[in-house]
Amino acid sequence: MGESFGAWRMGNDAALMDFVSSVNIACGFHAGDAGTMRETVETAIEKGVKIGAHPSFPDLQGFGRREMKMSAGEIFDIVIYQVSALKGICEAYGAKLHHVKPHGALYNKAAKDIETAQAIAQAVKKIDETLIFYGLSGSFLISEAEKTGLRTTSEVFADRTYNVDGTLTPRTESNALITDKKQAIAQVLEMIFDQKVTATNGEKVALKAETICIHGDGDNALDFAKLINAELTKCGIRIGFNSRNFPN
Amino acid sequence: MGESFGAWRMGNDAALMDFVSSVNIACGFHAGDAGTMRETVETAIEKGVKIGAHPSFPDLQGFGRREMKMSAGEIFDIVIYQVSALKGICEAYGAKLHHVKPHGALYNKAAKDIETAQAIAQAVKKIDETLIFYGLSGSFLISEAEKTGLRTTSEVFADRTYNVDGTLTPRTESNALITDKKQAIAQVLEMIFDQKVTATNGEKVALKAETICIHGDGDNALDFAKLINAELTKCGIRIGFNSRNFPN
Amino acid sequence: MGESFGAWRMGNDAALMDFVSSVNIACGFHAGDAGTMRETVETAIEKGVKIGAHPSFPDLQGFGRREMKMSAGEIFDIVIYQVSALKGICEAYGAKLHHVKPHGALYNKAAKDIETAQAIAQAVKKIDETLIFYGLSGSFLISEAEKTGLRTTSEVFADRTYNVDGTLTPRTESNALITDKKQAIAQVLEMIFDQKVTATNGEKVALKAETICIHGDGDNALDFAKLINAELTKCGIRIGFNSRNFPN
Amino acid sequence: MGESFGAWRMGNDAALMDFVSSVNIACGFHAGDAGTMRETVETAIEKGVKIGAHPSFPDLQGFGRREMKMSAGEIFDIVIYQVSALKGICEAYGAKLHHVKPHGALYNKAAKDIETAQAIAQAVKKIDETLIFYGLSGSFLISEAEKTGLRTTSEVFADRTYNVDGTLTPRTESNALITDKKQAIAQVLEMIFDQKVTATNGEKVALKAETICIHGDGDNALDFAKLINAELTKCGIRIGFNSRNFPN
Repeated sequence: MGESFGAWRMGNDAALMDFVSSVNIACGFHAGDAGTMRETVETAIEKGVKIGAHPSFPDLQGFGRREMKMSAGEIFDIVIYQVSALKGICEAYGAKLHHVKPHGALYNKAAKDIETAQAIAQAVKKIDETLIFYGLSGSFLISEAEKTGLRTTSEVFADRTYNVDGTLTPRTESNALITDKKQAIAQVLEMIFDQKVTATNGEKVALKAETICIHGDGDNALDFAKLINAELTKCGIRIGFNSRNFPN
Repeated sequence: MGESFGAWRMGNDAALMDFVSSVNIACGFHAGDAGTMRETVETAIEKGVKIGAHPSFPDLQGFGRREMKMSAGEIFDIVIYQVSALKGICEAYGAKLHHVKPHGALYNKAAKDIETAQAIAQAVKKIDETLIFYGLSGSFLISEAEKTGLRTTSEVFADRTYNVDGTLTPRTESNALITDKKQAIAQVLEMIFDQKVTATNGEKVALKAETICIHGDGDNALDFAKLINAELTKCGIRIGFNSRNFPN
Repeated sequence: MGESFGAWRMGNDAALMDFVSSVNIACGFHAGDAGTMRETVETAIEKGVKIGAHPSFPDLQGFGRREMKMSAGEIFDIVIYQVSALKGICEAYGAKLHHVKPHGALYNKAAKDIETAQAIAQAVKKIDETLIFYGLSGSFLISEAEKTGLRTTSEVFADRTYNVDGTLTPRTESNALITDKKQAIAQVLEMIFDQKVTATNGEKVALKAETICIHGDGDNALDFAKLINAELTKCGIRIGFNSRNFPN
Repeated sequence: MGESFGAWRMGNDAALMDFVSSVNIACGFHAGDAGTMRETVETAIEKGVKIGAHPSFPDLQGFGRREMKMSAGEIFDIVIYQVSALKGICEAYGAKLHHVKPHGALYNKAAKDIETAQAIAQAVKKIDETLIFYGLSGSFLISEAEKTGLRTTSEVFADRTYNVDGTLTPRTESNALITDKKQAIAQVLEMIFDQKVTATNGEKVALKAETICIHGDGDNALDFAKLINAELTKCGIRIGFNSRNFPN
């Protein structure tokens, strides 16, 4: 969310927020200028959704989707900066920052690179150890955040396909995105009820589905969100945060 | 301070901090990448100086010294973003952000443009109403911050000449900078003891000298700081924050 | 044209090019990354429209629409850089750069500030004195380019209202944009046949209508372009470049 | 050269130019704003040294020294943009762009990644097939440029150590840089007279020494350049371009 930049609009944030319980807001490094961030925070507060920071590699032109060889120290620093900026905006408007989820290439790199995952987790902990860390189920993002002492939420994707090792099919592959609604719903239900996903090679892969990601910039984002929300509700699943696990 | 950027070094921050009681740290928009900000905050904590945020127009190439026609709303947003980023870094390292002082063209514009001054003051108040606002003595920066309910510190300059209306001679003028140490010292002593300055036309101008600015990027910054510190100490002036006025 | 940036799309360039005879392509400072520039040049070549460079203040987030206080020398340098970049892309693909038209706040500033207009004109002449200079009819853009020895094309706007002094109503005013098609057509016809425009106060203002600007980022850009093209054709006006005046 | 940016100064370009025969000028993506580029071109013309473009990954904060995962197409586009910008500045001032040498992480990636090397070579050829391509001796930079039909100049380094495979020791290693003048001179003489270098493991590695690189941002750049120039001259080597091989 909040992935507009200056004159360029992206996403349909306010509408999407009616169908989700938490959002990740861009922090200015891959998208989201200061005004967009403030507007998106205000909308999130109004809609009553939890706010997360979505820090990225510093690459506006590449939308944070091009991996950059940054040292662990550099990554630590840019995460502190970006999360602090959004945290401050939240607090200025009376909200509490709820979680952090790295964006794009930073997320993907950290999922499989332990040093990157550690750098991000340490930065988040340094800012506020009560922040929840969202990361790819089964990846270094989750294991390293937990070792750091942060609470985590394992994330699964409604609109992305999976490799047999539990990683996402890279966006450079033609079958990376799920654009068919039925396929997306089937994948979501399998992930929630079976805690498994069917990889692109047909095998079943175990995962932990605690939060479902829908990309706000996708063409079908709103339709997907509505449909998934409706289907889950129909199945008796409440969209929201489990207050037993996460008291704040 | 903190005005290095990436591979480019500027200033001699650690040495300078031995001779001042508070510093203004760049927030990434005119200088100061995330790593530089963190290092400068760590040094300031170590040296025991008060930390201020130094937000700017978004103009790295112009070092924040070129006025930009931004709306009050845009200025409000970029101040919230930048100050929040530095505030978060301070808090991550156990320090409290002490004050805010706008940088360069943003400072100069706000000194004489009431809407800009209001936008900045409102942004600072929105973040934390206990933050102190540093601004040019006698300018809209001070009057509007006070109207907003912020505590202020009126600033005077050791290394800049003054116009007869109390504004600084623009940097585009050849006589804008004071590079002669004796002249700088004389100006500082006049400002502190007489609360007046001799303008470029020879007239005396009243001002309120509560903090003295030394530019960290000047060639003589360290010499000036040492000398001013020594001269003021010799005159029985203690460099520091007056705890009677500012309890935190 | 070419005002997309990275993941952010803007405009419907290929479709628009069927209804105009020349285009202005962003050069990376307010919009238009290197890939977008190359794609737009390729499309322009395919569609057979004349290519112009559209240099701007360096302000992606503000889309080049916020005036910046840059010196004449700085403006000269950024115009040389941007125009050279686009000129090189054109030549790499076998096209010749045809003209230069400053963008947004740079255009508006130069229209009324003689030094800015001179800096731009001198930069263009320094690059290639056969380049044609597009500027607001009756403004310093035209007069200074002519004094420099450049050929000029006086520009009028289909989708903007005029002040009585011949300048455009600023975008910050509510009546700046013409969104009604009939009003736009009427204004265009009056400008072409009478070489006059009706200002917002109702008075007639003389101007020189040699090229009509349609903003590619407007919601109605394509409709406007089609309609204006059709209406002018109906009136016996050929859309194109007058080869008698401009041999190349 | 030309690696200053805005208020930040780097290098001692004018002095260095007295001791070299060709320079690589930053094009704005890792360093070098438009004004710095123009000034550096003017100085190079005055000093009579050949001018090369030094395109980079788009990463000012990382000085182009952090590898970015960009597609071949993206690399092609940013090389066209940057080289065109510098080429245009050269031509505006009456000089001809002589060569292209990729910078930093782009250079290192292309040295060992055939697709990156091809993308850069194709971009250069697309701009002007008479441009000379500078690249690491024995690397894909040279082989792919030659396959594209470009003339090449094999480069060796005075101030960097070599791995046994002929690649440079990465800057992240402590022994990457040669700071001892005698060692640098010895390495240069061995490379020129024996067309070999002694790798960090002591083995001799064959290479082709057609041009010697000295980094303009090094602390000892000027001393190195003077000394190498003097030593080579003493040995009867003329610093300059061999007009038999390169007619223009």
